Amino acid sequence: MSTPAGLQASFIGIDLSGPKIGAAIVGADGKVLERRETTMAAAKLIEQVAGLVSELRAFNPQIAAVGIAIPGLVNRQTDRVIASRDLPSTVRENLHSDLMKATGLRVELENDANAAAYGEYKVGAGRGSRDMFYVTIGEGIGGAIILGGKLWTGASGFAGEFGHITIDTEGIECDCGNTGCLETIASGPNIVRRANERLYRDGTSSLSKLAINKNFTADDVAHEANNGDDFSLMMIERTGKFIGTGVASVLNLLNIERIVLGGGVMDAGDLILNPIIHEAKRRAFQPCFEATTIVAATLGADAVLIGAAMLARDAAS
Amino acid sequence: MSTPAGLQASFIGIDLSGPKIGAAIVGADGKVLERRETTMAAAKLIEQVAGLVSELRAFNPQIAAVGIAIPGLVNRQTDRVIASRDLPSTVRENLHSDLMKATGLRVELENDANAAAYGEYKVGAGRGSRDMFYVTIGEGIGGAIILGGKLWTGASGFAGEFGHITIDTEGIECDCGNTGCLETIASGPNIVRRANERLYRDGTSSLSKLAINKNFTADDVAHEANNGDDFSLMMIERTGKFIGTGVASVLNLLNIERIVLGGGVMDAGDLILNPIIHEAKRRAFQPCFEATTIVAATLGADAVLIGAAMLARDAAS
Repeated sequence: MSTPAGLQASFIGIDLSGPKIGAAIVGADGKVLERRETTMAAAKLIEQVAGLVSELRAFNPQIAAVGIAIPGLVNRQTDRVIASRDLPSTVRENLHSDLMKATGLRVELENDANAAAYGEYKVGAGRGSRDMFYVTIGEGIGGAIILGGKLWTGASGFAGEFGHITIDTEGIECDCGNTGCLETIASGPNIVRRANERLYRDGTSSLSKLAINKNFTADDVAHEANNGDDFSLMMIERTGKFIGTGVASVLNLLNIERIVLGGGVMDAGDLILNPIIHEAKRRAFQPCFEATTIVAATLGADAVLIGAAMLARDAAS
Repeated sequence: MSTPAGLQASFIGIDLSGPKIGAAIVGADGKVLERRETTMAAAKLIEQVAGLVSELRAFNPQIAAVGIAIPGLVNRQTDRVIASRDLPSTVRENLHSDLMKATGLRVELENDANAAAYGEYKVGAGRGSRDMFYVTIGEGIGGAIILGGKLWTGASGFAGEFGHITIDTEGIECDCGNTGCLETIASGPNIVRRANERLYRDGTSSLSKLAINKNFTADDVAHEANNGDDFSLMMIERTGKFIGTGVASVLNLLNIERIVLGGGVMDAGDLILNPIIHEAKRRAFQPCFEATTIVAATLGADAVLIGAAMLARDAAS
């Protein structure tokens, strides 16, 4: 379908990764033009997505295609959902064809971390690079690899598991079954665990505002660090140091030209980015460090739906 | 130049990585047909290579091209040598064009670990895979990545530095400046260092035949392990465990379908391969482990010159 002269085709990006479904019209330039959201009811997922798409099309009928990011693995050759912890099997069975039928539009399905990486690559912090490694640090630590403009997902779709490189062979047990994964130290919940351990073990609790609120989150640690709380600052810096150790290993393995770091933990900004860069510099081969740029993601939580829309845009061309 | 019917074109592979220059005629099928070698005199390198090539051409005039593997980095777009610890700068300045002139044949230059990886990929243990990670464990630990049939060398030619992923953030200092690199534990000289430390620290020296020879090498450790020496066996197994930890990180990052392990330390055979596989299985995501095959290299020390010849073969087609 060609678009009338003067009207740029737009795309819909949909993010199924959270408790809410986020949907937006995204221009061909990656700008979010109009948003809708609704609380996910997994059993009615197809109807919910179709409803959001038709609301957005009522707003702007020039929609060329839909990109949908899911918390699971997608085989992009067959468009089948291979695995997902969060989507019920009845829903994911024929997800792609059901969504095509329900929306009447071409649909591109992709894993959520991959979609976010693609968004950052095309219109965010990865722009201008050819090869990029994307890291997201929040409840867990994920990642994705883009080589020569394409997601590189490996033999069975799992490539980019940055959170599960071993940085301490004698470390604690990880959800994945391994011990000493980066995720056991640097994910949001593990920042909280480490902070709690130190606060009460070292008797330093009276020194930090964190101790007032026993149910603090990683966001609170970042917030107090920004407010000048020394203990919180030390926790953020040490976390950055461990992430930087992982980044150095990626640089030595892949000699990749851009590292983009996103996710909630990166909301601490330069307080965490600087120690990451410092540790990566200290540990990586000099030519590997010099050939790369390590930056914070710029699209925030929109990365997933913008990336999904960009995947829909680029599959069309 | 076409080859007369019934006569298969052959290639010359040259290995400049060792103290000796190895040269061989290699068939299009990767078989070594005829060898020459000479002790390297770096200042006369061009003449030495030209001499070996003309000796080999006297034996078989059907040589289509020459592949030369060097201990240094090569920019394959410009054929310039970017860096080399071992080749004098006067020699490497115009190495590629000097070699073309001196031999009168098309010449492909490549880094030695990359050439070995390519050899294993085409006619060795990597055969049949699309993507492969190659590791060589000897005096140092190197590696190379092949994706979709091509060497993937990264932004500045350094990709694949498997020996310099950090597996122990508090580990000892490495030659590269980092601390806790895999190489500080699992390279040949570090196996010897660890064995010596344990023999005399724990007072277990009387338990091992290694203690008789104070100047033992990593080869001796493997040899005694093969002869049933418990201490040597334990050292080899523990080394395999650390290498397997690195392999697991590569599997989780790249989800790659084949891992090929070569180099002198792998001469210990199954005694080291089995603990590597065991530890990789224990630490990697199950789907990443299940999607891969971890095997020992099959070309031995010939991998470098066979790979160089295969690069010459494939650049021709």
